[in-house]
Amino acid sequence: MQSLKSFVESQRFERAIIILIIINAITLGMETSPALMDAIGPVLLTIDRLILAVFVVELMIKFAVYRLDFFKSPWRIFDLIIVSIALIPAAGPFSVLRALRILRVLRLISAVPSMRRVVGGLLTALPGLGSIVLLLMLVFYVFSVMATKLFGGEFPQWFGSIAASAYSLFQIMTLESWSMGIVRPVMDAFPWAWAFFIPFIAATTFTVLNLFIGVVVSAMQA
Amino acid sequence: MQSLKSFVESQRFERAIIILIIINAITLGMETSPALMDAIGPVLLTIDRLILAVFVVELMIKFAVYRLDFFKSPWRIFDLIIVSIALIPAAGPFSVLRALRILRVLRLISAVPSMRRVVGGLLTALPGLGSIVLLLMLVFYVFSVMATKLFGGEFPQWFGSIAASAYSLFQIMTLESWSMGIVRPVMDAFPWAWAFFIPFIAATTFTVLNLFIGVVVSAMQA
Amino acid sequence: MQSLKSFVESQRFERAIIILIIINAITLGMETSPALMDAIGPVLLTIDRLILAVFVVELMIKFAVYRLDFFKSPWRIFDLIIVSIALIPAAGPFSVLRALRILRVLRLISAVPSMRRVVGGLLTALPGLGSIVLLLMLVFYVFSVMATKLFGGEFPQWFGSIAASAYSLFQIMTLESWSMGIVRPVMDAFPWAWAFFIPFIAATTFTVLNLFIGVVVSAMQA
Amino acid sequence: MQSLKSFVESQRFERAIIILIIINAITLGMETSPALMDAIGPVLLTIDRLILAVFVVELMIKFAVYRLDFFKSPWRIFDLIIVSIALIPAAGPFSVLRALRILRVLRLISAVPSMRRVVGGLLTALPGLGSIVLLLMLVFYVFSVMATKLFGGEFPQWFGSIAASAYSLFQIMTLESWSMGIVRPVMDAFPWAWAFFIPFIAATTFTVLNLFIGVVVSAMQA
Ligand code: NA
Ligand code: NA
Repeated sequence: MQSLKSFVESQRFERAIIILIIINAITLGMETSPALMDAIGPVLLTIDRLILAVFVVELMIKFAVYRLDFFKSPWRIFDLIIVSIALIPAAGPFSVLRALRILRVLRLISAVPSMRRVVGGLLTALPGLGSIVLLLMLVFYVFSVMATKLFGGEFPQWFGSIAASAYSLFQIMTLESWSMGIVRPVMDAFPWAWAFFIPFIAATTFTVLNLFIGVVVSAMQA
Repeated sequence: MQSLKSFVESQRFERAIIILIIINAITLGMETSPALMDAIGPVLLTIDRLILAVFVVELMIKFAVYRLDFFKSPWRIFDLIIVSIALIPAAGPFSVLRALRILRVLRLISAVPSMRRVVGGLLTALPGLGSIVLLLMLVFYVFSVMATKLFGGEFPQWFGSIAASAYSLFQIMTLESWSMGIVRPVMDAFPWAWAFFIPFIAATTFTVLNLFIGVVVSAMQA
Repeated sequence: MQSLKSFVESQRFERAIIILIIINAITLGMETSPALMDAIGPVLLTIDRLILAVFVVELMIKFAVYRLDFFKSPWRIFDLIIVSIALIPAAGPFSVLRALRILRVLRLISAVPSMRRVVGGLLTALPGLGSIVLLLMLVFYVFSVMATKLFGGEFPQWFGSIAASAYSLFQIMTLESWSMGIVRPVMDAFPWAWAFFIPFIAATTFTVLNLFIGVVVSAMQA
Repeated sequence: MQSLKSFVESQRFERAIIILIIINAITLGMETSPALMDAIGPVLLTIDRLILAVFVVELMIKFAVYRLDFFKSPWRIFDLIIVSIALIPAAGPFSVLRALRILRVLRLISAVPSMRRVVGGLLTALPGLGSIVLLLMLVFYVFSVMATKLFGGEFPQWFGSIAASAYSLFQIMTLESWSMGIVRPVMDAFPWAWAFFIPFIAATTFTVLNLFIGVVVSAMQA
């Protein structure tokens, strides 16, 4: 067991896994080309299945080595989830899941130490920002309900339900076509609509900038 | 009176209010769905009225407890305004006010300590930035008057009055469709119009970035 | 002379000027409304001329008091230029100059100490950034010449001359309709055009962000 | 040889080169005007060729002076590449290369010490950001493959291949027409498409802001 542990923790093993992930990234990319699928489709799918098998064996070995400690590393849980997605039979209603197989390539993040550090730095900054995310969600909920009540009747394509309003308000927050696309048409029916949308834009763009800078600064100090 | 004070300041009371706000947020959201209103409309409206009654009683107790000190806490004034909006009879010309009822959910900001701190941090940063906001308003006023005089005759839909110009310049400041939507058509009539709009964009986007970063940095140091 | 100096430097005099600027801002704004011009046009124009006369007298007194030292204060030179613009006869080909009268309101910046400080802070940061502005102008020139040579023949409305290209590239730098409006149509004729525009976007948005943050940080440390 | 070295390193020589670059920038700009080419085309092309000859001689002298040390200065390599581009015969399939001649003007960056410092500062910040650039490329690859598989069949103009998807996702990351132009049409066919694009926008805009601020902060501390 000890030798198995030193084997899965060896640099040689880690590098082999990284190379397999990169090969898999290439084959999964090649599978999007109809021409390549016609020519060497079975080869690509076989490589795909073989590499998936190696990943499953790798996880089983790690499970045998670490037992319940397996779940102490968030990166191993990350690997487990990503490999599991690939094992769900992607037929019928689940055919969309086939597209999720490429997520396997995200294992590079957990496999390459420098990327693990970058992502880790960003993620450890998140919990301290819970209140500001909550505030943003609250503002979105309040404005979505108001927009649905105020403009939903006249503009159902944008504000017909809370979900539709939340999507439209997200678009407006990113400043995409907010005026020519949405607010000017709405103002033709409700001339005071600017008094709803401009404070929304000011409040949310400011809060998001605040949130982003907060994460960046936290990550730098960490 | 002392026992009433300790009652409204107890954690149990605060938590009960937070739970009522969340329930109210859900029912107010459900009221936007015509299907739900047909099915359980009277139930939703009754819950709505009951919770509003609790909020009114809560404010009255706090008024009895703190008397004139009531107005020393900006958060209690905030609660008072928001609850008052819900009490205005929203019939006829005031029907828009019905949509403002959801603002009651913003009471979460004053009820949850961590959110009170986040919003308080942002607001305390504002007064120090008065001059820069004044500068921005001055720049907007000057450019709005100029745009109305220069382009109002040819493009009344965008620059027909100072208010129309201010709205259009706000859109241009957010960079939304500024060129393809507005400045290129204007340049077909006035080829030198870029000399008006590009300095405006440079000056205002820079000032707003400055303003936002100023608030963020102030809030961080606080 | 000494008493004249203490007069123009007194707070009472400064406040009187500020009030005149604000009154003038209001009358110049009212002049944009055809309805108001029909009703009280002559009154507005008379107030306008009277206030301008006061400003001219003010500058003459300051000139008498400070003599050549007048030009030592950049704010006084600023006032001189702005008042001079209003004195140019705005008839015939110079009718556009009539719209520049509102610039007089910018005298508020030099008249209100807190705004003088804000603008001064931003301006003192500029000289240290000369190299980066020069770099940006160089990049714009090089890309404008290239765009004119590469795409000017097929798309003269966007890239027909160096000036047209510079304007279009400025629009692309602000990310306004860059892809749907310009680069996708260009790529229909030149499929490799993304290799020209995406590096341009990356280089210039990064340089401008750098420039803006540089000014903000310099202004904060000052 | 020693005198040749002190000659090419003298300020007088450096200034002469800078003046030649600026003259060349102007003539290359004038070459974009058909009217000017008709009038003084041969003159412009002769100046162009003469200045290029001077640059070639300059590089040859520097090569003779520094020999293999020539390649120790990245700025000299930069000059070598830029001058070489101008020497490639730009006929037939290489006619696009003629537009690259203007790149010669970028020699100003290496010739003017203050600009060399600005660009050098930005470039030295880059290596430390390798991991975050790698992360961004990984996220783009994964989302491009997924977008091609999910939406490529219905929307080949945007997601028909990995390259098309990567371009469209870059456009979406810059927030250009992301909703009105792409995601709303996609959501008509796949109502859940927001769950793909909104996390992509959140993740990439945040990562890019992080990257840019990282470079700016590194460059300031350097
Ligand atoms: Na935009
Ligand atoms: Na747009």
